[in-house]
Amino acid sequence: MASSLFDHGQVFSQLERIFSAMGCNGRHAHLCSDILVLAELRGIPSHGLMRVPDYHRMWKKQRINASPSLSVVHESPGTAVLDADRAFGVVAGVHAMELAMEKAQQCGTAWIAVKNSTHYGIAAYYSMMALERDMIGISMTNANTLVAPTFSRQPMLGTNPISVAIPANLEPPFIADFATAPIARGKVSIKEREGQPVHQGLLQDEKGRMTTDPAAIRKGGCIRPLGGDYEHGSHKGYAMAAIVDIFSAVLSGANFGPFVPPQIADLPEAQNSPGKGLGHFFGVMRIDAFQTKQRFKEYMDLWIKTFKNATPIDDQQEVMVHGEPERRKEKYHRQKGIPIPEKIVRDLNEVAKELNVKQRLSTTPEQR
Amino acid sequence: MASSLFDHGQVFSQLERIFSAMGCNGRHAHLCSDILVLAELRGIPSHGLMRVPDYHRMWKKQRINASPSLSVVHESPGTAVLDADRAFGVVAGVHAMELAMEKAQQCGTAWIAVKNSTHYGIAAYYSMMALERDMIGISMTNANTLVAPTFSRQPMLGTNPISVAIPANLEPPFIADFATAPIARGKVSIKEREGQPVHQGLLQDEKGRMTTDPAAIRKGGCIRPLGGDYEHGSHKGYAMAAIVDIFSAVLSGANFGPFVPPQIADLPEAQNSPGKGLGHFFGVMRIDAFQTKQRFKEYMDLWIKTFKNATPIDDQQEVMVHGEPERRKEKYHRQKGIPIPEKIVRDLNEVAKELNVKQRLSTTPEQR
Repeated sequence: MASSLFDHGQVFSQLERIFSAMGCNGRHAHLCSDILVLAELRGIPSHGLMRVPDYHRMWKKQRINASPSLSVVHESPGTAVLDADRAFGVVAGVHAMELAMEKAQQCGTAWIAVKNSTHYGIAAYYSMMALERDMIGISMTNANTLVAPTFSRQPMLGTNPISVAIPANLEPPFIADFATAPIARGKVSIKEREGQPVHQGLLQDEKGRMTTDPAAIRKGGCIRPLGGDYEHGSHKGYAMAAIVDIFSAVLSGANFGPFVPPQIADLPEAQNSPGKGLGHFFGVMRIDAFQTKQRFKEYMDLWIKTFKNATPIDDQQEVMVHGEPERRKEKYHRQKGIPIPEKIVRDLNEVAKELNVKQRLSTTPEQR
Repeated sequence: MASSLFDHGQVFSQLERIFSAMGCNGRHAHLCSDILVLAELRGIPSHGLMRVPDYHRMWKKQRINASPSLSVVHESPGTAVLDADRAFGVVAGVHAMELAMEKAQQCGTAWIAVKNSTHYGIAAYYSMMALERDMIGISMTNANTLVAPTFSRQPMLGTNPISVAIPANLEPPFIADFATAPIARGKVSIKEREGQPVHQGLLQDEKGRMTTDPAAIRKGGCIRPLGGDYEHGSHKGYAMAAIVDIFSAVLSGANFGPFVPPQIADLPEAQNSPGKGLGHFFGVMRIDAFQTKQRFKEYMDLWIKTFKNATPIDDQQEVMVHGEPERRKEKYHRQKGIPIPEKIVRDLNEVAKELNVKQRLSTTPEQR
């Protein structure tokens, strides 16, 4: 599909207008726009602009609340449960991380479970907030049901991502951000569109048999947990996804597993679901609650350098430390612009039109 | 190999005599014995009695200290770093968990990083301690270097396990305990002894090529991270192992990654390693810091029942919730006895003899 390059600042401004038109206040419109642009900059377009039409439809159906009243419904000095009042996930997540960083001043760490929330975008957006405060940031969420537990043919879990961001000194920080399933739904769709098979060990069909057919997901199949099958440790991937689900939803009182409300407007929400909305879980740990800041950061530099210098299998493919590929993409896209497929530009302009936003994104060179 | 069944109480008493003879006080001898017996009861013999000869050799080389002075070297209301003074790992781990449960009374959660420790056995021993106090328990450790990062042919990480134990109401608790690598070193050795290949995707040879030959590990090969290769998400398994390593060793000041001192007496410790000993990381979260206890536990019951009832692929293989297989084995072994191979009985008796412990384990029926 043809793409054009856009300056990220131009895209950000257009998104701000769109979210403001939905009724977001200035701060919330900023956050909603910032996380989508950051996803594009870091090379994760599945969590970027392509979400906007769905966010818009979810908002029209009142499944997302653009002017929420967030409230702490339970707390201790180092913990809280936040009811997000169906806010945009990023509004809930940033609120939770700010509360966590404040509570960690007293306790050394703090942990916030969020219920009644919606799709929260890239998990690293939240974990990275802790870095500038010399804290480790942790973020996780449950998600649309797509993954079958080991030995099951029923979708019971989302791709439930985890992000952990850890500050260093002279080295850039360690930033892991990964789904606990081996492949994202978006990548399966791309394979299907291209008529390409997916690797063996990632998907199963409606009867639970391994398949390489990307269409299997639409026909009642599932993504397998990380590991693929029991012999390759899929019960460990299943454990990770289950822990994310329990921390995000049972601690908070959100919906868990198969009851997670779909974050796609065309899919109906379950009736009589046991919890409220989607759940997230956030944590921060002050590094000076464990070591002096300087000693921790220098030791982390040594960790990063040691792993970067691990002997590669192939000299053409260096060994990576988590966060490095995204950081390179971000640098490149900030300079060169972010590539946006024409279809997505049209979708964004359609949303703008419906919301009576006058400005449009244009792919003609003079507008860039 | 021929095995005999032993009453777990008889084995426990013999272990207590052995650890007491090494100089452990009553409490420490109890803990060292209890964790090994529990590993056998729960069907994880790789972390059970077969470790005793190595523990004994490590003790003789003064790499394990049977009369340690544990000390908190840094703390905040909800965190601490513990220097374990080369204690048996279980002595350090139980001390850390007790401190965490005490600190969580104030902060809702508490997190303890441990340095200067040694092999700590089954990770679930520690996480499960939290259950009777209505807390979630979390335990992780770094370990002997065996696993190569994605794209590397160098062993840089251990099989770095994580355990999370979560209380429920009428249902038994959720207890996950899993290595972040897809196969344990012990299982590779068993395959080699049996002349059997291992599954493709678990191991690589000294050049980093995938192999099914279990001997590859002895010849400079490595275990791959969970996922196997990049296309199957091995960078996610690498991320999990890295996070365990950083939390266990960088937060505490223990040795990380390739510098972790081997917990096998025949392998030398590195000179000039940057940290102190092996590292662990423990956490507890009071469930009433997030919900009323009763509401949390009932919701957790619903989670467990929902997942147990997921549609199986094959009616002969039910869908499991983590902790269930070990619980069944424990029940069975408590009644029927634990099977111990004759070689291990001889090894234990050899250790007893060296330590001037008069009693012996006997495989003759009248002794059982």
